[in-house]
Amino acid sequence: MQLFYQPELIQGANYLDPEESRHAIKVLRKQQGDTIDLIDGAGTFYKAEITEANFKKCQFSITDQQSEPKRDGLRHLAIAPTKNLDRTEWLVEKAVEIGVDRISFLHCQNSERTVLKIDRLIKKAISAMKQSIKATLPQIDEMVKLKSFLQQCETRSKFIAYVDFDNPRQLKDCLSSGQESVVLIGPEGDFDPAELQMAEEAGFVKVSLGESRLRTETAGLAAVHILNLFS
Amino acid sequence: MQLFYQPELIQGANYLDPEESRHAIKVLRKQQGDTIDLIDGAGTFYKAEITEANFKKCQFSITDQQSEPKRDGLRHLAIAPTKNLDRTEWLVEKAVEIGVDRISFLHCQNSERTVLKIDRLIKKAISAMKQSIKATLPQIDEMVKLKSFLQQCETRSKFIAYVDFDNPRQLKDCLSSGQESVVLIGPEGDFDPAELQMAEEAGFVKVSLGESRLRTETAGLAAVHILNLFS
Repeated sequence: MQLFYQPELIQGANYLDPEESRHAIKVLRKQQGDTIDLIDGAGTFYKAEITEANFKKCQFSITDQQSEPKRDGLRHLAIAPTKNLDRTEWLVEKAVEIGVDRISFLHCQNSERTVLKIDRLIKKAISAMKQSIKATLPQIDEMVKLKSFLQQCETRSKFIAYVDFDNPRQLKDCLSSGQESVVLIGPEGDFDPAELQMAEEAGFVKVSLGESRLRTETAGLAAVHILNLFS
Repeated sequence: MQLFYQPELIQGANYLDPEESRHAIKVLRKQQGDTIDLIDGAGTFYKAEITEANFKKCQFSITDQQSEPKRDGLRHLAIAPTKNLDRTEWLVEKAVEIGVDRISFLHCQNSERTVLKIDRLIKKAISAMKQSIKATLPQIDEMVKLKSFLQQCETRSKFIAYVDFDNPRQLKDCLSSGQESVVLIGPEGDFDPAELQMAEEAGFVKVSLGESRLRTETAGLAAVHILNLFS
């Protein structure tokens, strides 16, 4: 199933953007009268009929719409992006496929990546949303310093993943159905002990994601999957 | 922590292979008398002292050894490799990081990839094992036809992931601690209905991995993670 994305559908837009128009008309050879499937990224699927098969601005008229089933709770991941950007792009793609509501990026003491252009990550998220037949685009935030994030985070249940074999409280045992949760994942060099203390003082509970030592991006995906399975 | 891999340690080998020797001596500049950490891929960590810092055949003498804690049960993934090999390599890397005991590859009706060289996949697995500080290399099998696999598979609890919204029995609800389980994941075009029937006749139970529609390699990783979390 081919989905087209038009975030301005809610404001009444009845055309595809140039890239999507080109794809519909030049690649898929859609014609006037053909039906297409659209999403608005805000939770609704649409069926529409093409009214003008223009490859720069393909116009359509909506014939049907259906809301995506809503999920209770919030699956919020806050993670330090990896030095190698491919690994963070991969994480965004897989997290969207598995299901995530919000991704925040953290600038930490041991961060090797201190600049992050989120446009490419949003593109990855859009593509994964379409691929996995979802109608909701997760919120993706610009990178902020860990301290600001800790001060401003309003997500109700707060967790910080930290490898600590003496105190193995499992994330999965801290969750319940419909819970609004955020999980912090540190950079390649992990959180600095002072950062861990700052997070604990801000109400974040130290948790383990399992028995294995995971890379940053794998830990991020494991956390998202656990949020899906246990909340 | 830098781990060196020498699968023949059990047979008494006391040297690194040429690639590992070069890395130890030329890159890490290890010298005679220095300590190195080794694994045999069969579940044991070793400490050794370098006795000859030869960059073609670095020799050592074992000073200590420790078994990796054993895990009950079996986490067995059987999956059709993706058309794009990178995605299967990625899966192997991540599955080893998260924890898997055996990976089998299936040749199915809708498989777009009908040839698979597993040497590269084993290399990925070795690298992920070292990276995640594990001492056990999962068994990685050559690709076989689905039918042969179904006939020969001796893993006790058998599951087949199949998208079926009418019958959503969840894999996570079918598992218990210490269970020996195999999960089959189909190719990009999914299993053919006749294949599904053949698997069910061979004792495989149809299960869902969750609410989302996942790509082959994401489904493979989700299955492995569920086996880790619930068995």
